[in-house]
Amino acid sequence: MSTLDQSFVKNSSWKPDLFKGKVVFVTGGAGTICRVQTEALVLLGANAAILGRNAEKTKKAAAEIQALRPGSTVLGLGNIDVRDVNALVGAAKETVDKLGRIDFVIAGAAGNFLSDFNHLSSNAFKSVISIDLLGSYNTVKATFEQLRKNKGAILFVSATLHYYGVPFQSHVGAAKAGIDALSNALAVELGPLGIRSNCIAPGMIDGTEGMARLTPPGSEPLERKVPLQRLGKTRDIAEATVYLFSPAAEYVSGTIQVVDGAAWHIGGLMGSMYPGAVIKQGNDTPKL
Amino acid sequence: MSTLDQSFVKNSSWKPDLFKGKVVFVTGGAGTICRVQTEALVLLGANAAILGRNAEKTKKAAAEIQALRPGSTVLGLGNIDVRDVNALVGAAKETVDKLGRIDFVIAGAAGNFLSDFNHLSSNAFKSVISIDLLGSYNTVKATFEQLRKNKGAILFVSATLHYYGVPFQSHVGAAKAGIDALSNALAVELGPLGIRSNCIAPGMIDGTEGMARLTPPGSEPLERKVPLQRLGKTRDIAEATVYLFSPAAEYVSGTIQVVDGAAWHIGGLMGSMYPGAVIKQGNDTPKL
Amino acid sequence: MSTLDQSFVKNSSWKPDLFKGKVVFVTGGAGTICRVQTEALVLLGANAAILGRNAEKTKKAAAEIQALRPGSTVLGLGNIDVRDVNALVGAAKETVDKLGRIDFVIAGAAGNFLSDFNHLSSNAFKSVISIDLLGSYNTVKATFEQLRKNKGAILFVSATLHYYGVPFQSHVGAAKAGIDALSNALAVELGPLGIRSNCIAPGMIDGTEGMARLTPPGSEPLERKVPLQRLGKTRDIAEATVYLFSPAAEYVSGTIQVVDGAAWHIGGLMGSMYPGAVIKQGNDTPKL
Amino acid sequence: MSTLDQSFVKNSSWKPDLFKGKVVFVTGGAGTICRVQTEALVLLGANAAILGRNAEKTKKAAAEIQALRPGSTVLGLGNIDVRDVNALVGAAKETVDKLGRIDFVIAGAAGNFLSDFNHLSSNAFKSVISIDLLGSYNTVKATFEQLRKNKGAILFVSATLHYYGVPFQSHVGAAKAGIDALSNALAVELGPLGIRSNCIAPGMIDGTEGMARLTPPGSEPLERKVPLQRLGKTRDIAEATVYLFSPAAEYVSGTIQVVDGAAWHIGGLMGSMYPGAVIKQGNDTPKL
Repeated sequence: MSTLDQSFVKNSSWKPDLFKGKVVFVTGGAGTICRVQTEALVLLGANAAILGRNAEKTKKAAAEIQALRPGSTVLGLGNIDVRDVNALVGAAKETVDKLGRIDFVIAGAAGNFLSDFNHLSSNAFKSVISIDLLGSYNTVKATFEQLRKNKGAILFVSATLHYYGVPFQSHVGAAKAGIDALSNALAVELGPLGIRSNCIAPGMIDGTEGMARLTPPGSEPLERKVPLQRLGKTRDIAEATVYLFSPAAEYVSGTIQVVDGAAWHIGGLMGSMYPGAVIKQGNDTPKL
Repeated sequence: MSTLDQSFVKNSSWKPDLFKGKVVFVTGGAGTICRVQTEALVLLGANAAILGRNAEKTKKAAAEIQALRPGSTVLGLGNIDVRDVNALVGAAKETVDKLGRIDFVIAGAAGNFLSDFNHLSSNAFKSVISIDLLGSYNTVKATFEQLRKNKGAILFVSATLHYYGVPFQSHVGAAKAGIDALSNALAVELGPLGIRSNCIAPGMIDGTEGMARLTPPGSEPLERKVPLQRLGKTRDIAEATVYLFSPAAEYVSGTIQVVDGAAWHIGGLMGSMYPGAVIKQGNDTPKL
Repeated sequence: MSTLDQSFVKNSSWKPDLFKGKVVFVTGGAGTICRVQTEALVLLGANAAILGRNAEKTKKAAAEIQALRPGSTVLGLGNIDVRDVNALVGAAKETVDKLGRIDFVIAGAAGNFLSDFNHLSSNAFKSVISIDLLGSYNTVKATFEQLRKNKGAILFVSATLHYYGVPFQSHVGAAKAGIDALSNALAVELGPLGIRSNCIAPGMIDGTEGMARLTPPGSEPLERKVPLQRLGKTRDIAEATVYLFSPAAEYVSGTIQVVDGAAWHIGGLMGSMYPGAVIKQGNDTPKL
Repeated sequence: MSTLDQSFVKNSSWKPDLFKGKVVFVTGGAGTICRVQTEALVLLGANAAILGRNAEKTKKAAAEIQALRPGSTVLGLGNIDVRDVNALVGAAKETVDKLGRIDFVIAGAAGNFLSDFNHLSSNAFKSVISIDLLGSYNTVKATFEQLRKNKGAILFVSATLHYYGVPFQSHVGAAKAGIDALSNALAVELGPLGIRSNCIAPGMIDGTEGMARLTPPGSEPLERKVPLQRLGKTRDIAEATVYLFSPAAEYVSGTIQVVDGAAWHIGGLMGSMYPGAVIKQGNDTPKL
């Protein structure tokens, strides 16, 4: 089910039709965060193609997003593994065939789970790096001709986990740090071609799978440790996405937009669990 | 003369009346950058008070900004030195008396000039730190009660000079680094009171005094070294300012919004002048 | 009383006489951290001048440090306020007159105390910025000719408080952020003259005044939140200081050496006191 | 041929026998940088195992390093691809069988070449990420039991390329950014087990393959753009390595030691080639 609806067009800070005629290509678009990003862009006039591994889930999400705005087209392209650049090339081709162009790319496909180093196998680490970092790279490779032609913009979905050393997230932190570096390099390399590249780094967003996993039952509400005293809403991420693709941000490139209510500045996410939990896990039998 | 006009309301990404009923308090508002920030907010519905040292210049700027939108009120409060917290308290009081409230604060008063370390006197260094860093602190002190009451937002005007070591700007780099740190600390401390705090870091903006000083005559156009291949426009800064104060950014706090066309990632601003210029200046007779 | 003794020469990783013939000039040298830095350098062959505001305390510390190594000379120069560049010039002159030269400079004078924003007056903020940041600048100004002549090295004493937004330390965080930026700018500007510039950022060091203030009675031992599970020793800071001035670091400049047992990566220093303490303080009557 | 010799023991800042009884495990040990790191540790008393893909080259290097200090043992373990965790496990087992233990790990295996985004295939990007980032992860996995048992230390070989957006190095920048994040996470997670984790970030080091590739013939000497006005020596990296493994750094963890003569602060490595070179390459026919 969609999170946003026509009231976003009416009540938000943005002019309607802001993205009229634009097409956005989204990996991870059936997931919570990228989906709402897509909803906002479609509500404000864009057409979209969302890609996912699960064909049924992806098509269902596409149909629901398309229903948000009469006249919109939203493609749901399933069976796409972002580790396979050729699959992405096919999806980009289908998008251009059906929607005419690609202006914006959201590289959002990501894997995530909590694991301490000792229990995180070499394969599990590789899997997250491959989906998040290589998948993001492949997404830009597959859409580069369109980005170049239309002087488009790229948005990578990053995180704040690597600003310091968050336990149980070494794999995701490494992947997202790589993504930030990739985005900055592309801002420099592709800027002269008219392409902008930025990252968005969501904090603790309510309703995502990640948050459900991160909250031990019975613990103090996580929002107490967010300076603004609430969890993020997926809409908060959608708003920043609209901004970064809008003409208002046409001179913004090579940046990382953190949307977290200032939470990362607090640190100490593990609270009273540190160092007990890492000592226990670290002393266990090693796993390759 | 104002940079923006009613066409901004019509053509920008933002809904008209976005800031209806809001009041912004701006130090440095008669300067190029802060002035355009104020123009955009006023055009989108806000009233404003701009503060400056030169009374005549400040009042003239206020009148011109006020003329942008019928029905707006823009106060020009001159003879204000941001190093004097009591002067700022007086200005805040006058603003509340005349405009009813303060919702947004832009701490933008700044001093700048190029100087190598050897020729930068202790007093000159102190002067820049005092205006930029202490002045920014004082601005928040003087408006704190209003910010707390209205769950307002602070925007500090920073720079990118301290992301690495830019020669001839050690004073400004130190001041702006301090401002970034201050903003982050306030995001954490004041967040639970409902106050957001962010920085904006403009790159090379065309038409500012700073740019005129930075460009040696006869040198290659500076925009060649900006990935997006153009200098910034003051409007680019105005757009980011609108975003950060808008409801679209209500979960954005503790961030630094760089608006520079990805320029800082290139570095090497001094080009072929490095190291020749710093060696020559550094070997001169020391100045205290 | 000195912390180190001749056993440091015997048991440390360093060759004796490493700094034979070298002279170090230290502001804040009567304080806990800078004193031990000086002790290590003197034990390994250097002569030193330590500067402080309290003449008696400074002379006593100098005499005690001098007693560590037969044949050493350690000057205790009191009544020096680092905010006064001329006082520093006088101290530098006296050092060169009596010790022949200055090779290394430690800019360590600092003020610190805990205060939330609402209770931190404009003057108190200014005082910390002036002692820490302007004082550091003045220290380099006063010794520049010697540094240039002897291809010397500068070490600023910084902190990790501004890597994210530590509450109750907005003043110190801003000052130390400014110092880091200053150091980096000087590394670039003065490098071609043969001068190196670096910062040291101590974590929670046992036995310092700062730590005593930071630990609420009855709370969980702070070292539990340090990944290496102990507080720092002043000797840890002395070791890093030796490294940065040693020939082993002759290509190290423009860096910040953190010595904190990885503590800053944990964040969350306030633990269960956040956000309660900042809300209570922030809702109090404002203080200018 | 080895770079260092017995004169290092005599002339360096370090006590001889500093690493007596210690064993270091080094991936990439037949390459220029990691080899000199190993030489220094062996000269100061350690035994070592160096791993490489080329069996002959690795064994030859091991024999030459072993010849530096009578009584030392240096294993050359060839045919090891760091992408294969099991190969590393075998090498670690052989090291412990023959040398008794592993105290220090240097994760240094890396691939590098210059390529703009448009000509950097998905596979080439993957290859560098796999060798550098996954390989580093695997190296720690394979030695974790020994590190835990001996309260050892890890040193990752990183770079400064991702501090801003260096063109033609998006692959290496992303990999090294991931490595930094991994190191920080391990510092936090493994610190309570007594394991330290740090990175070393070499600048432009004379005599490495990388430097040969980076210098266009006929261009201005690169050292002019290094603030300290010289390229790095491999010995500079060896010195920092000794420091980070020495007892002098026993409270140093979660840090990145940059050894670059302050070069990264200058930026602008591409000089007059930017933006011409990236525009030309970027406008070429895309390569997947």
